[in-house]
Amino acid sequence: MSGGQQETTIGVHDLIARRRSPRALDAMSDVTPAQIRRLLEAARWAPSFGNTQPARFLVGLRGDDTYAGVLAALTERNRSWAHRAGALLVALTVRRNAKGEVPYAEYSTGLAAENLALQAVAEGLAAHQMAGFDADTVRRTFDVPTDVEPLVAIAVGPAADAEVLGEPRDVERERAPRTRLPLSELAYTGTWGAPLP
Amino acid sequence: MSGGQQETTIGVHDLIARRRSPRALDAMSDVTPAQIRRLLEAARWAPSFGNTQPARFLVGLRGDDTYAGVLAALTERNRSWAHRAGALLVALTVRRNAKGEVPYAEYSTGLAAENLALQAVAEGLAAHQMAGFDADTVRRTFDVPTDVEPLVAIAVGPAADAEVLGEPRDVERERAPRTRLPLSELAYTGTWGAPLP
Repeated sequence: MSGGQQETTIGVHDLIARRRSPRALDAMSDVTPAQIRRLLEAARWAPSFGNTQPARFLVGLRGDDTYAGVLAALTERNRSWAHRAGALLVALTVRRNAKGEVPYAEYSTGLAAENLALQAVAEGLAAHQMAGFDADTVRRTFDVPTDVEPLVAIAVGPAADAEVLGEPRDVERERAPRTRLPLSELAYTGTWGAPLP
Repeated sequence: MSGGQQETTIGVHDLIARRRSPRALDAMSDVTPAQIRRLLEAARWAPSFGNTQPARFLVGLRGDDTYAGVLAALTERNRSWAHRAGALLVALTVRRNAKGEVPYAEYSTGLAAENLALQAVAEGLAAHQMAGFDADTVRRTFDVPTDVEPLVAIAVGPAADAEVLGEPRDVERERAPRTRLPLSELAYTGTWGAPLP
């Protein structure tokens, strides 16, 4: 959470600048049904290829069966912190529909998931996406159709102090500054590899 | 642009609620280098699988060679309106790196592109993503490595009145309310297909 040299400094919108993927979540705070609805509504209004809208969500709130089912599908490593989440979701993508393969299904679902993550910031929450879960367990538990693919699990809740993680190594990792490639290595003009002036 | 029954009403953050993908862009307004830099910075801070950061961008501003190269790669249909953009970008994804195939490359690039689209809103701009372009032309024009895939072209600029599109059919389409699936068809709890209470 602390600012490092790599942190955003040049006027990116607050909602985007403040987004994090914390592991330290507050086990004492609930995520309300109204908050979840706004997160989903944000995802719903994302753009998608030809308005195909392939993103789907399974939604569990602490204490319900869906929450338990998603938690059980996580890797042990992710369960060790995600059990503090107020909500556990799975984002899925419709790979095929009546017209055949959905182009950009994964990409469009990424667009929707980022809207969801940013709406979480607006709610005073964080949404941490995880690849570490068993998709087949999710399929079986929730009877997911074959043309739909579970892509990521998402832990949602208010961030807590890193100390809740317990293990000193985990606490240190949580507090480390975030890092990204310099802009000169991801945006080019004129030709590949040539940074912006 | 006008509000329809399907428009967002339940308290989604303004930045997300106001995002659009207009075709009617203002050919008289420039997109500044500082604005483009903030759009890219927003994309840069998006989450990605294991912080692999596969998103890359080719960036053209009106009048430069990159702009001309991207415009030439668009389908004729997209060129008919995107020529009014102040900036034309291509979002690409690094499919393979030194460690092999990048998992979630397309998904992670979607996360980054949505950040870029929302930062555009913060700048008073719109970012309209297009699948309609020739990826091979982009590869050749900008010497894109084989492990990198051009995914979408993005037209950036301030929205203009729909009338700039000229064709009555296009004007009507631009003014039509946006539509999305109802929440009950994209978010489930308990089991697949069961809407939230």
